[in-house]
Amino acid sequence: MDYLALANAGVSGLQPYQAGKPIEELERELGISDCVKLASNENPLGLSPKAKLAIEAALADLTRYPDANGFYLKQKLAQTFGLDAAGLTLGNGSNEVIDLIFHTFVSPGDEVIYAQYSFIVYALATQAHGADAVVVPAKNWGHDLDAMLAAVTDKTKLICIANPNNPTGTVLPPAELEAFLARVPEHILVILDEAYNEYMDPALRADSAAWVARFPNLVVTRTFSKAYGLAGLRLGYAVTTPELASVLNRVREPFNANALALVAAQATLEDSDYLQRAVALNRQEMARYEAFFNELGLTFIPSSGNFITVDLAQPAAPIYQALLQQGVIVRPIAGYGMPNHLRISIGTAQENERFFSALRHILQ
Amino acid sequence: MDYLALANAGVSGLQPYQAGKPIEELERELGISDCVKLASNENPLGLSPKAKLAIEAALADLTRYPDANGFYLKQKLAQTFGLDAAGLTLGNGSNEVIDLIFHTFVSPGDEVIYAQYSFIVYALATQAHGADAVVVPAKNWGHDLDAMLAAVTDKTKLICIANPNNPTGTVLPPAELEAFLARVPEHILVILDEAYNEYMDPALRADSAAWVARFPNLVVTRTFSKAYGLAGLRLGYAVTTPELASVLNRVREPFNANALALVAAQATLEDSDYLQRAVALNRQEMARYEAFFNELGLTFIPSSGNFITVDLAQPAAPIYQALLQQGVIVRPIAGYGMPNHLRISIGTAQENERFFSALRHILQ
Repeated sequence: MDYLALANAGVSGLQPYQAGKPIEELERELGISDCVKLASNENPLGLSPKAKLAIEAALADLTRYPDANGFYLKQKLAQTFGLDAAGLTLGNGSNEVIDLIFHTFVSPGDEVIYAQYSFIVYALATQAHGADAVVVPAKNWGHDLDAMLAAVTDKTKLICIANPNNPTGTVLPPAELEAFLARVPEHILVILDEAYNEYMDPALRADSAAWVARFPNLVVTRTFSKAYGLAGLRLGYAVTTPELASVLNRVREPFNANALALVAAQATLEDSDYLQRAVALNRQEMARYEAFFNELGLTFIPSSGNFITVDLAQPAAPIYQALLQQGVIVRPIAGYGMPNHLRISIGTAQENERFFSALRHILQ
Repeated sequence: MDYLALANAGVSGLQPYQAGKPIEELERELGISDCVKLASNENPLGLSPKAKLAIEAALADLTRYPDANGFYLKQKLAQTFGLDAAGLTLGNGSNEVIDLIFHTFVSPGDEVIYAQYSFIVYALATQAHGADAVVVPAKNWGHDLDAMLAAVTDKTKLICIANPNNPTGTVLPPAELEAFLARVPEHILVILDEAYNEYMDPALRADSAAWVARFPNLVVTRTFSKAYGLAGLRLGYAVTTPELASVLNRVREPFNANALALVAAQATLEDSDYLQRAVALNRQEMARYEAFFNELGLTFIPSSGNFITVDLAQPAAPIYQALLQQGVIVRPIAGYGMPNHLRISIGTAQENERFFSALRHILQ
């Protein structure tokens, strides 16, 4: 039976998302047990101890459906970041929040603008909704906001911006972003995807959530999967005007945020020590990566995230494979049009040592 | 800003899903602490002890993304039910699996057929996708399969069937279902939503998952939210042909099933004692509800689920409110066009006693 003939516009052109290789899979293949995964930009610290306690306390009620409105987590987010709880929409990871914007607003015939080398989910969602992708060439591996503005047509429905960008780690100065938003026509929605927001240099961090009052077409998305260490539980959110949140919450599945994600996210927000440790570790180890690549004479893209992307000046695929053989999983990004680069997530000091020593061995 | 003017067809007509009232909310309102919730068809036994252990063991890795392919859970499902793992699609509850079918196949202009008094998510998803709902009048509170077949037009894309049905608890004999499937044109997809499958009388339970080999347009959906006691964690799945699963898995968000749901579902499948206790308790307590309603002279709809729907022969809203005042939360279903009925989830013996005594008090 030809399912694709029955499917919506765009579905037949979809390719599945390529997730980072799981540790267990590599260990099974190699028959070893101490592999290191630096492939999915996860927090290497392990769960916040407060989150662990909150999860354990919530197990007794796990047969109950989650709170469909995420009342307590929204209150905590609002209080922590000075937001209006009515402008929050929770999702099963920020991936779902981004998909929700597409489900709600994007149809075949619409154009979606995003940058070359930006997060692949924008391309997948655009394709899945049968819309037309307008991919704007990158400037210095990041967003060229002027060119993105120039790409606006009367069919443009949505612009996606990742700041910091994944997989390149580039960041946009707040003033440039703000000037850009002021020039985007109000009927065009803008997703500002801040998955790596917490790792940014505070001097470069915009007060983007406050902008939604001035730019009602702005959707700021954030996640608990990176600095907050909850990738396995799936919790992301959007900051928008309350009016837009009200629309998104109608399209959202009622129990999309699971009960343990709700309590764990709330507890992690209360654990400011955890966030500080995660950011401090990242800063310290990022400096070691930079020094290491400089020592090897390899060019890297300066990163504001919890990963670093290096130019190997030769095809990366064989080196990725050789790293696997040494028990180190990183991320090839040929799918992003960067066949000579690898993206490495910043791990613990010990995990990073494994990478340094493996790469050194391979390149010598 | 008029967001609805920018939104996709159908969004402006959406109403938010009305979840069951949370216990904490009622306790806050009444200032008491022993409220009973019999409103969301949850398993009253609490989590499977094996699931609890599996969750605790998985906390150390919770900073990692879940396995995007749910490898081990699919293997366990395949082994437990004699299925082909390649024909499985996991979701964030079966609600997401149902939405995924809509995202993949349903567009404005399509018709979706479902029965009067059937699960409200079909209506919400049809509306959200801008499709046209064809609501077929119920027969004895359940599905009228002949009338549903007669409603097929050249615009029909999808037919949704809940078996057992929520909120009425009616069930379709396997032979009738099978004959129906044989008559549905192959280009029309059929969702057979078996959220309450485990509670059915085994004599009435179809070997529906085996049917997908003969009916490639069939999508059987199941959930861990009911008899398996994992509503808070969100895990549902679809059984289809491997070819259809391959299409759905492209549209699916890669990490839609969270890491704890994956391990808890697997562990609960290994805890056959838990499932037996849940089903046995339900059977025993269902008989008490029937006896109680008979004693009060109230008509109920015989139910194959873990809930029972009773006709109060008067507007149910005031009685629902009076039950709340007694600390008992049940589900009003006026939104389903059943203003004189209440749906009560089967709880523990003690919880059910609370309901019996509260309703007796109110009606006397």
